[in-house]
Amino acid sequence: MIGVDWGTSSLRAYRIGADGAVLARIDRPGGILTVPPGGFADALADLVGPWLAAGERRILACGMVGSRQGWVEAPYLPCPANLASLAAATIPLPFGAAEARLVPGLITRDAHGVPDVMRGEETKLIALPRDAALACLPGTHCKWARRAEGRILGFTTHMTGEVFGALSNHTILARTRAEAPHDPAAFARGLARAPEPGGLLHHLFGTRTLHLLGELPAEAADSYLSGLLIGHEVAAALAETGATAVDLLGADRLAPLYAAALEAQGVAVRRHDPDLVAAGLHAIAGALGWT
Amino acid sequence: MIGVDWGTSSLRAYRIGADGAVLARIDRPGGILTVPPGGFADALADLVGPWLAAGERRILACGMVGSRQGWVEAPYLPCPANLASLAAATIPLPFGAAEARLVPGLITRDAHGVPDVMRGEETKLIALPRDAALACLPGTHCKWARRAEGRILGFTTHMTGEVFGALSNHTILARTRAEAPHDPAAFARGLARAPEPGGLLHHLFGTRTLHLLGELPAEAADSYLSGLLIGHEVAAALAETGATAVDLLGADRLAPLYAAALEAQGVAVRRHDPDLVAAGLHAIAGALGWT
Repeated sequence: MIGVDWGTSSLRAYRIGADGAVLARIDRPGGILTVPPGGFADALADLVGPWLAAGERRILACGMVGSRQGWVEAPYLPCPANLASLAAATIPLPFGAAEARLVPGLITRDAHGVPDVMRGEETKLIALPRDAALACLPGTHCKWARRAEGRILGFTTHMTGEVFGALSNHTILARTRAEAPHDPAAFARGLARAPEPGGLLHHLFGTRTLHLLGELPAEAADSYLSGLLIGHEVAAALAETGATAVDLLGADRLAPLYAAALEAQGVAVRRHDPDLVAAGLHAIAGALGWT
Repeated sequence: MIGVDWGTSSLRAYRIGADGAVLARIDRPGGILTVPPGGFADALADLVGPWLAAGERRILACGMVGSRQGWVEAPYLPCPANLASLAAATIPLPFGAAEARLVPGLITRDAHGVPDVMRGEETKLIALPRDAALACLPGTHCKWARRAEGRILGFTTHMTGEVFGALSNHTILARTRAEAPHDPAAFARGLARAPEPGGLLHHLFGTRTLHLLGELPAEAADSYLSGLLIGHEVAAALAETGATAVDLLGADRLAPLYAAALEAQGVAVRRHDPDLVAAGLHAIAGALGWT
């Protein structure tokens, strides 16, 4: 089978064997925002044509390709969700060359009725080991998902990565920073600041005052701010769930930062392969009877 | 005497009688960023020339005019500070036409050694009634100051106003908002969200998901976000101090929002005149023996 993870700004395709092994992969910057109106079928044919010519007949896709700005809008599936309910909620894609289906995103509501949504991450989450309880998927918008016995119970999205960019480029903090390599000591200092009194909106200003008083070099400001924000995020996520162990997904530069933040809180961290999405697509395909 | 409140982007002058009454005021957009190098004495002469011609001989200034980017840099006075120590720490300004002095800003350090600074607000704080305990000065950078028996013990700066601007203009939240008049119900809804679990970085994303699901009109998004941020700020400031009453300074559009946030927490709010800076300058002049 063929698995496709089609996001806002990225496009990944996997050729997956019957046993779930990834036989080949394609990674290109062909996110949904680059696809012209009505152009999704052509883009997919261009992406996986050689694999279809080689005999593949089934494609399962996930991600923002199922959003309002994507190919076909797949309604969000409410939590709790599991492998069977995700498979049952897949919808067909109009792709003549092969059988193609789309995995829906998930929607959850907290105890106060406030909604949250994801598209793409559900496919990674469903592939975690059955004993995974709290999972963290770092990113521009970081997702924290609660699981039990293989079900996804609910989740929260934290805008941490995007808030970092907005603050460091579009506030007074932009004046006291300099581009520099990651500084683990400054990051740890920001992490340690987060639980202290005052709250995030006050702690942010400390980034500036520490610099004004010569106590935080401009080259360390980004790492300190990153520690401050991730520290606040991790504290809120752990306080809400009471978790003492976290499954951490992702392999980019953010994952080690979240691992450090979690370990600083005494939390056991289990890291996962970045190709978890291929495992999830294969598992959903299995529930569809494709394998 | 003449009092001058010279900030980054604004310039206010007061002609003050011996009894502290404001006899005349000038308000113009001549903040320190608009003054050419070496041009402060000329700018001041232009501002208060008519009052000097009418017989005034003493000028006391406060605000960012005493910063590194201002006229003369006045070293920060450490907290705790009171009327006598502020007066003793004033420094002379090189202004031939009259005796002119500058009120220094304040510096404080919290229990963990992290510094905070202010310039200009100390002059308003010193003019509050002796029984004021926790004072709030809304602004782009909101100040919360702890006082006891007329002394300023310490303070915290919250970047709330600037964070609001950065988030609403430079993140995904910019896509789901529309310019509209303040919406008190949406503001109250944001306030009520702040103490719920999840933390600020998660609550921010709720602004988007509520809109996506048709539960928050774009016209209400700014007011909701404002309530969310001010709600988080007020909760942190009250948690840190345990205050049940707050002296609220300022008269712009922010002051009623902070009053609403404080009253929603059951806190008694005492509002103060926006010309408190003139009262503070007069009080410091008194401690200098000028009146």
